[in-house]
Parts: sequence; structure tokens; C-alpha cells
Amino acid sequence: MERALIGKISEYEGKEALIKGRVFNIRNLGNIVFLVIQDYTGTIQVVVDKSVEVKTGDAVVVTGLVKKDVRAKSGFEMKGEKLEIVSKNTEELPIDLSKDDLNLNLATLLDYRTLSLRHPKVQAIFKLYDLLLKSYERVMREYDFTEIKTPKILGSATEGGANFFKVKYFDKEATLAQSPQFYKQMMVGVFERVFEVGSVFRAEPHFTTRHVNEYIGLDAEMGYINDLYDITKTLNAILKKMFEEIEKEGKPYLDLYNIELPKVLDEIPCIKLAEIKKIIKEEYGHEIPEGTDIDPHGEELAGKYAKEKFNSDFIFITHYPWSDRPFYTMSCKDNPEETCGFDLLYKGLEIASGGQRIHQYDELVANMKKKGVKAQGMESYVDTFKYAIPPHGGWGMGSERIIKQMLNLESIKEAILFPRDVKRLIP
Amino acid sequence: MERALIGKISEYEGKEALIKGRVFNIRNLGNIVFLVIQDYTGTIQVVVDKSVEVKTGDAVVVTGLVKKDVRAKSGFEMKGEKLEIVSKNTEELPIDLSKDDLNLNLATLLDYRTLSLRHPKVQAIFKLYDLLLKSYERVMREYDFTEIKTPKILGSATEGGANFFKVKYFDKEATLAQSPQFYKQMMVGVFERVFEVGSVFRAEPHFTTRHVNEYIGLDAEMGYINDLYDITKTLNAILKKMFEEIEKEGKPYLDLYNIELPKVLDEIPCIKLAEIKKIIKEEYGHEIPEGTDIDPHGEELAGKYAKEKFNSDFIFITHYPWSDRPFYTMSCKDNPEETCGFDLLYKGLEIASGGQRIHQYDELVANMKKKGVKAQGMESYVDTFKYAIPPHGGWGMGSERIIKQMLNLESIKEAILFPRDVKRLIP
Repeated sequence: MERALIGKISEYEGKEALIKGRVFNIRNLGNIVFLVIQDYTGTIQVVVDKSVEVKTGDAVVVTGLVKKDVRAKSGFEMKGEKLEIVSKNTEELPIDLSKDDLNLNLATLLDYRTLSLRHPKVQAIFKLYDLLLKSYERVMREYDFTEIKTPKILGSATEGGANFFKVKYFDKEATLAQSPQFYKQMMVGVFERVFEVGSVFRAEPHFTTRHVNEYIGLDAEMGYINDLYDITKTLNAILKKMFEEIEKEGKPYLDLYNIELPKVLDEIPCIKLAEIKKIIKEEYGHEIPEGTDIDPHGEELAGKYAKEKFNSDFIFITHYPWSDRPFYTMSCKDNPEETCGFDLLYKGLEIASGGQRIHQYDELVANMKKKGVKAQGMESYVDTFKYAIPPHGGWGMGSERIIKQMLNLESIKEAILFPRDVKRLIP
Repeated sequence: MERALIGKISEYEGKEALIKGRVFNIRNLGNIVFLVIQDYTGTIQVVVDKSVEVKTGDAVVVTGLVKKDVRAKSGFEMKGEKLEIVSKNTEELPIDLSKDDLNLNLATLLDYRTLSLRHPKVQAIFKLYDLLLKSYERVMREYDFTEIKTPKILGSATEGGANFFKVKYFDKEATLAQSPQFYKQMMVGVFERVFEVGSVFRAEPHFTTRHVNEYIGLDAEMGYINDLYDITKTLNAILKKMFEEIEKEGKPYLDLYNIELPKVLDEIPCIKLAEIKKIIKEEYGHEIPEGTDIDPHGEELAGKYAKEKFNSDFIFITHYPWSDRPFYTMSCKDNPEETCGFDLLYKGLEIASGGQRIHQYDELVANMKKKGVKAQGMESYVDTFKYAIPPHGGWGMGSERIIKQMLNLESIKEAILFPRDVKRLIP
């Protein structure tokens, strides 16, 4: 008999069906026993005889008659006639999956990751993550971006600084990519519009709820732009479509968190850093010293302001000072102390960073000198700009941060299957 | 004026249009000058006055009248009225892009990667690669696989052996993932069907046309299978759909290589290793010693046999000996010396490797002991099998090898934007 997916069990009403899945829960009422069987499409209650030997967690194949049952969650019940255990649970589960909420502390949740993920609410996070990847890949292609894959083992650090991991590469020393920045910029000269979904490695010894040392970046770069706003507008339009898709296809998972996704505005508010700092001070009394970047609390307040003033979960903050942005960021024509760089906040947390880049060789070399960045090891990147790279810009977006904010998760680590931090290398 | 894409220039016949792109070629006929302008959608010939100062390679914005012209390749020509150089080529290109074929040796092709990629034929490789990624992602979802992303920095080596790179991870020593094998197996216990598109790192000091040290793996794992053939059949069906999509959408790129993609058979031939070795000896006189794996020349002959006998570009070779397969591979019930492992060859080159895995904890532990594999560092993987992982299996597929074989490229490095080998870490 062909396998019936539990999510489509209504098609088998009054008929015999064969289901495959895991025993999620057992209720023993003496003469009869109720099993909750779960596959990747849903759960169903199966009534079996008390003589059936089966334990919570076992992987089973069950055949039986499917009946309508208004009392059942799914509206259907199965009368189990034959049950085969195809893989046996040999140990008691160390965590209780039967509750509506797991209520585990983060360390336990992650230590027992392969089991805690069996909980529908934890699993839902990664069903939404799957939809996030799907929608990014689809919408980027709709906007004519070509998907590229660039190397993660590099001859030298991309962004400089000290926050990179070292790799022993045969007889050489190499580093892990802190971003695909150089590669995606170089590829603007070839494909004009490129995107990448790939691993990003950061060696920062952070202990926060929003940092990890390995994550999946949603990167993009586009050519022939007029200014910074060509990038923010494109990202705006792409996010709007992505959120519409996730809202539509991810409803059952969002419902578990009582989340209704907000519409992304056609025009996400776009405010200069200097201005938002002034607003935050005036509206909320939070002062950020001049010449410094906005702090995490300031970002939260900027998010609050966007919600209160524009009913927007998102806000672009633009024109970060030259001193705060990497050497490849273009400075403003009217004020070289400001750059055409931006951050995008979602509910008060930075989820993307981007800007217009320098595309003229001379300007790039001059800015590197001014910043004290050595060209050594990045000659092939710098030299590319001798050969007419069009005006361009792009963004790097943190995929897991989007999911964290979407579901109001306490830590970004909840949005990563197997997160890596300073202390955590397993599982 | 809105930008007109060159590929859609026919919509502007008889009208003024604004195009953006790169000067690909210049023909100077004295009074008038013909420019070939290229954007990511195509090329068009633009006639400009001899007074216009522009060089090959410059990035330009041109406005002008679009006219039908039967002599032009695209069927259209533009009379350039205004030309603005938005990014200037400041140096002569070190390679000549105007020829139909670049004819560069591999080292030069890769040293000047950001420029050689501007050649339409080189670019076409990565347009097809983009389609490969797109079709894999789409078809895997059609088959109910959930996309996952698993860590690339690991506490210990996945597959053991010596072919892994070491990373300095804060005060610990870590390794780069040689495959997502353990993670995807563990996730079968959660999502049943998972796939991953991700970086794979192999520290083998190979110098061949089919190996690199970093590549993109197309991995998958599925639960509740009956046997090995549930996996080969699923991969067969998925490849068939992928190739149909690539054939349809990639035609202009395939045409540049005079390639017509073959139909993937509904049933790719599936032959046991012992049998194909016999056939290769009988048909082609090539003898492979007993107890050893098939050698590269043997694989070529197996591919030749599949083509001659079944008119198939693909062939599954199954039942590899226990000694040749990793510890997690399931042995055959009737002959424990053989495993339920397979390789998939495309035109005589292995592009995928997979099989049914051991899903019972006791069997896994016993096989590890027999193979001399230490559990240390992989406790969380091994322990997961105490909790009823369903019968399962899957594959790891090399994305770049598919493209290499599809276009009959001499080296896999031609199918990677920025390949990594023992000697090459830049660009």
C-alpha cells in the first residue's frame, strides 16, 4: 500500500490507509490505547488494542481505517489494525515533548538538540527558516540576480581586523571568510546582479543574544545604481515579497507563536543616523555621544519610533560616519565625513548592513591609504577596479536574525539548528 | 528614463531607449563607429559618432533610437545619441575577450578570473550553475524535503581519516566539515526529508581534473525507506526534473557549447559493482582486481557501457564492498561483505555517492567497533540512534562535477568561480 501523509488523511475518509511516523504521545485508557502519530505533515490519533506493545518515540508503520472524528484535533481518527515498529526507542527520552511549551533553558535545549527539535514549536522555527531561504532564492531570481557560490577559505582576511578564524591549509595559513564582500563586488563586473546564500564565520568572542560565530548570510550586490537609495528600495521590495510568501505558506507555524506577520511597507522609513540619534534623545531621553555608532538600546528605540510613528517593523538608518564603515564604502559627495552606508533594523535589531561601494580604482586606493588598510593579499580585488566596475552596492543580511525577530525568540541561537559560540562546538 | 534591458530591446522598436552596459567591442569605420554593448541579458550594436571617446571595457549608459536591422545578430541596432561613461577602464585588458573562444590555459583563465568571466562562453558556465542550484532547490521542495543549514566548523572530523582542515577556534582546535553527513542523518529524526546546499572542505592533496579542496555539495537524506532503491529512484526522478528545467531555461547557454541535454531515463540502469567489473572486463578488456574499488578508467568504461547498452548518460553502481564504505553504511542482509551503498556516474564520472545508512544504535556501535572508528567527539551523533531514527538513506552530490560533465569541461576548476586547490588560494 502507498504511504498516506497524515496532513492529507482527509482524502482517506472511510478507507484503509498506511501511515508512517513517530509515536508522539500515548494515552492508556485500560482496554484501548490512544497513540498520537506524527509525520512531517501533521499528527493523527490512532486507536489500538491494549495488547499492542509500543513506546513513545518509536518509529512505526500503521495501517487502519480512517474515520471522521469531530473530537480529534485534525478532525480524523484511525483505527489501527496493524502496527509495525520500524525503529525502536531504546531509551527513555531525557526531555518531555508532550507539553505545549518545552520551557527548557537554552543550554539544555541545545544540548538535546536532536530531540528538542521534535517538538512542534521548535520544529516550526526551522520550517519558517526553510521558507525564508526559499523566498529569498525565489525573489532574488525574480529580480534578475544570479546565484553565486564563492570560496570560504581565503588567502587573506576580507575585512581585516582580528575577528577571523585561521585555517591550516596544506603548507599555508589561510582564513575563513568573514563575508563574500570582495567576491560579490568583483562579480558585479560580470553578472551585474548577484546573490549568495552561504556560511559566514566571525571570530568575535561575543556573549550576547544576537551574535554567533557561524551564520548563514543572505548577500547581494547590484550594478548600475544611481545612489544608495537604489539599494534600499530594491531590498525593501524584495523583503516585502518574501514576507508575503512566508505569511502565506508559513501560517500554521506562525500560528504556534501567535504571530501575524506585518505587511512590509512600500516605503520603509529611511532616516539618517544623525537625525535618528536626535529623535531618540528628544523622544525617549536616550543620548548617544556624537561620533559614535548607535548602541543596541538606541537601535531598540529606533525600532520603537518606526513602529509608533510609521507603523513599520522596519527602519533604514543611513549615512553612517566614515570612521565606522569599512574602506570600500563610498563617502557622500557633499560631506565626505558621512558614507552611503545603511543598516536595516527589524523590530529594533540590525538584520542587514549595506551601502554603495567605491567603484573607481583611484578612489578605492586613496580610501585604503586613509584608513591604513594594506593592499597585501587583496591585490586581485583591488586590481579589478582598474577595469571599469560599474557603480554598485549591496547588502549582507543575517538569515537567523530575521527569524529571531519574526518569532520574538530570546536568542539567535534558537534560530540555528546547531549554533556555534565561543563555548559551543557540539553537537 | 527607465533602463531598457538589451535582451528585451525589441519592445523599444522605433522608440528612444536607455541602456546600461559594458563596451564589449569597438569597430571603427572612419566616420562612424560601431560599439557592441553588453548587459546581463544580451548584446546590441550601437552606432555612434566618431567624436565619441570610449574604450573597450568601459561601463556606459547610452540613450538612442532603436531600429530593426536584419544584419545585426540580435535583429536590432541602436543609434546612440548620448553616451555617458559611468566607470572608466583605466588599463588595457590583459586578455582578449573578442574571440569566440578564449583559448587560455587553466592557470591564466583562473588568474584573470574576474576578467575571463566577462567572456560569454565562460559566463555561460555559471548561468547554468545558477540554474542547477535553482532546479535542485525547487525540485527538492517539490519532493517535500526541508532545506537545512548545518555548521561547517566542527568539534571533530565527520568521516575521520586525515583529509580534513584544522581551524583554530578560540582556545580549541576544530575542523572544517568534510560533509553534512552526521547532521543530515540526525535531522531525518526530525524532518524526515532534508536537503542542504553547502560548502564542503576536503584536505586531500589531489592534483586531478576532478578534485578540488572546497566545493558545494548538494546533500539529501530521507526517512522511512524500504531499501537502497527507494533512494536511487528518488534521486533519479529528481535529476530528471532538474535536467528538464535546465534544458528549457538554459538553452542559450547550452547552445554556446553545442550541447543538447539528454533526457534522463525514467529508470537509470542500476548495476552491482561486482557485475559491472565483470562487464568492463568482458566488453572492454579492462581488469579491476577483486576487492578493490572501480578506478577512474573503469568508471569511464562503465559510463561508455551505459551509453552503448542503455543510451543513458547516467548509471548507478551499487553494492560496494563493506571495506570501501564509511562506518554508517548499512550492510546487505544476505551478504554482510556488501553494502547498500551506491555511486552515480554521469558520462563516466562519479557525481554522487550515497546509500542506506544504519539506523539501529546497536548495529551502528558494532560496525564502528569492527571498523576501528572511535566514538570520541561524535557522541551526540551516535546517541541520537537510541531514540528511534527511522530507516533512512541519502546522497551527497558534487554540484560542480555535474556542470563539468554537462559541458564536457576539461577540469572541474572551470566550473567553480574561484576554485581552491593545493596551490591556489587566490583570487
